[in-house]
Amino acid sequence: VTTADERLANAELSAAPPGARPSLRPFGAVGSLLITSGQVAARDGVLLATGTVGDLVDLATARDCARQCVRNCLDAVRAVLGSLEPVAAVVRLTVYVASADGFHDQHVVADAATDLLHEVFGDRGAHARTALGLRALPLGSPVEAELVLSVREPAN
Amino acid sequence: VTTADERLANAELSAAPPGARPSLRPFGAVGSLLITSGQVAARDGVLLATGTVGDLVDLATARDCARQCVRNCLDAVRAVLGSLEPVAAVVRLTVYVASADGFHDQHVVADAATDLLHEVFGDRGAHARTALGLRALPLGSPVEAELVLSVREPAN
Amino acid sequence: VTTADERLANAELSAAPPGARPSLRPFGAVGSLLITSGQVAARDGVLLATGTVGDLVDLATARDCARQCVRNCLDAVRAVLGSLEPVAAVVRLTVYVASADGFHDQHVVADAATDLLHEVFGDRGAHARTALGLRALPLGSPVEAELVLSVREPAN
Repeated sequence: VTTADERLANAELSAAPPGARPSLRPFGAVGSLLITSGQVAARDGVLLATGTVGDLVDLATARDCARQCVRNCLDAVRAVLGSLEPVAAVVRLTVYVASADGFHDQHVVADAATDLLHEVFGDRGAHARTALGLRALPLGSPVEAELVLSVREPAN
Repeated sequence: VTTADERLANAELSAAPPGARPSLRPFGAVGSLLITSGQVAARDGVLLATGTVGDLVDLATARDCARQCVRNCLDAVRAVLGSLEPVAAVVRLTVYVASADGFHDQHVVADAATDLLHEVFGDRGAHARTALGLRALPLGSPVEAELVLSVREPAN
Repeated sequence: VTTADERLANAELSAAPPGARPSLRPFGAVGSLLITSGQVAARDGVLLATGTVGDLVDLATARDCARQCVRNCLDAVRAVLGSLEPVAAVVRLTVYVASADGFHDQHVVADAATDLLHEVFGDRGAHARTALGLRALPLGSPVEAELVLSVREPAN
């Protein structure tokens, strides 16, 4: 039996080739806190748009993308918890917007995601938020989002 | 009575127009953990500067902006908790710096925010930190910051 | 004796000069939750590479950098906790990739870090993840990473 410390000491410095990652989870949990993985703006496996917002992608499309990202976060939670009923509150929403130089309406993009949380959860959907302008996001998604939630029962 | 799951299923795919967002909060809380919203470098409603650090905005200005962002985070906490006394410890500071290509002193910008936390909280202000170089931030702010705090009494 | 509120009111608006920051910690803790500082891709004090991924830095190098960042996070945890044995689970991994325009394989960079966590922790290394493309990172590091972990005993 080896310890985590021994396995760290023996781990290769270099990375293994790409492939399936069973150790990736839709969310991580500690106590009643639940953090989702970042979700890109894909629906049925296809991105709603690609590129940076402010040039290739317009504001209205970016806002729809933000809603789709949050939908994907919530779908991931539902897939594991069975439904959204165990969600006690939304704690924090982070919206990452792939942004052209000079685009400064990341918060307007994020508003569309905030609205969806209010529609779905009502008062328990009120949340802290951070909106940021990134250079690029995985697969060329214009938006990525992640949620911190609290749940009634620990989800570990 | 509908459930959150039903409301998610019925939510429009498209975003509603911009407007007031009552569901945005200055911070979210779960147990004794408190996460502030990201705060830009505004004082009395006006940004201290706009643009990216390393070209339009110099290092000294960026550092003042970082302090202002943290002030705004703490003001938001005070507005809800009544004072900073319920704060048991600063857990994590994240400093987002809108950066020109080739600007790599995000940690020096963040140091100015770290100092403020030390001045205000002393030993309980010691914290983990992440400093990042973004392409753009909301409203053109050169810096944005957010805090994770622990509080003596749950703040839900 | 002054309060945190009074010290905030009296704090200078401007930042002090750079220097040692004793209030920076390798991680912050609240209850059984532990958040590491962001770690750049340095080994023995030297960055493995500098620049943005997709032009100056190739994918294989970026993936090695991602592993090194996570090593540094885990080394920081070990330095404080004595070993990795108190770690109950990895909750969330965030991988920040300094990205050239048009580079959209941030998730492939992050896979290399995910693998290391699986090698070290096995099933308790499964985690939520967010991968992002930044413009620039401190010191010119091509990758930065941070971890949220849960520990068996509160680490405050």
